Amino acid sequence: MAPERTFTGKVFIGISVDGFIARPDGSLDWLVPRGEAAGDTGYHDFIAGIDTMVVGRGTFETALGFGEDNWPYTDLRVAVLSTTLPDDADTRVTVFRDEASLAAGLASWGSTDVYVDGGKTIRALLRAGMVQELTITTVPVLIGEGVPLFGPVGGDIPLTLRSTVRLGAGVIQTTYVVDQE
Amino acid sequence: MAPERTFTGKVFIGISVDGFIARPDGSLDWLVPRGEAAGDTGYHDFIAGIDTMVVGRGTFETALGFGEDNWPYTDLRVAVLSTTLPDDADTRVTVFRDEASLAAGLASWGSTDVYVDGGKTIRALLRAGMVQELTITTVPVLIGEGVPLFGPVGGDIPLTLRSTVRLGAGVIQTTYVVDQE
Repeated sequence: MAPERTFTGKVFIGISVDGFIARPDGSLDWLVPRGEAAGDTGYHDFIAGIDTMVVGRGTFETALGFGEDNWPYTDLRVAVLSTTLPDDADTRVTVFRDEASLAAGLASWGSTDVYVDGGKTIRALLRAGMVQELTITTVPVLIGEGVPLFGPVGGDIPLTLRSTVRLGAGVIQTTYVVDQE
Repeated sequence: MAPERTFTGKVFIGISVDGFIARPDGSLDWLVPRGEAAGDTGYHDFIAGIDTMVVGRGTFETALGFGEDNWPYTDLRVAVLSTTLPDDADTRVTVFRDEASLAAGLASWGSTDVYVDGGKTIRALLRAGMVQELTITTVPVLIGEGVPLFGPVGGDIPLTLRSTVRLGAGVIQTTYVVDQE
């Protein structure tokens, strides 16, 4: 697992009732208008408490697609967990090849509050014991197919409910803490 | 879809945070103790308002497995939606081959409040416009793999949140109504 973990890994993500984070082609047309109708989702408060971003190659490339002037991770250290992305892909990010080297990198940076994003990366860090909090914002629609948030995590991961809040437009935001073993 | 629908199809089901209704082998060891710790889940009130059960072959066979004296659907009409179960499989149930004949059967019975159970059957009836309410009781654990509640439903199904209640032991019960087209 993660001995001497030096940080808290946090997930903050929007899903459909059927557990998808994007359509098969990545689109969020089902999520964005419902998220906007929800009112304040607490995202700004959340991100204000984050020092480091951990994403996979997919989320990194999505961020690149926003364009040079729209890099979403300003003021954050960014780690990309990927076996394929070149080390020198982008000066704004550091590439790590596995969870152990990522954990060492986060420790060397002095990271304390780490935002973990992207389905595959979230599952990898859940498996590695590197996610401690999950804030899941559920919008009221079934989309039937898409990119799942969850999947195999190497065994049961018991959670403790910290809070559940009903936002606007039928959106529910729930925060769980991963039980310590 | 279902013209002149004569009934309300209702789902009442427990899931893990990652959306499973059973482990791959069907076991519910992760669900039952957490459900019991939740306190009153409203199941008895729910079932008291139901006149007809719709299940698939899998759920039917699970019910058979409880033994002759433990048939769980006493006092309910039971429809089994299955392409393979023989018509004369059990005198306590009526077998329907497709959603259209099921809808006709429910109409002929005068069914008004129909409990739809089992992942595959729930998805089939969602697709056919034969589910109007979903009460989802979420227990705080990730199990990683198992029998999913949701899957392809033939397009987006927008929902309206009716209620969300925090039960005991970190269990959340949420009721959605399927938006009418």
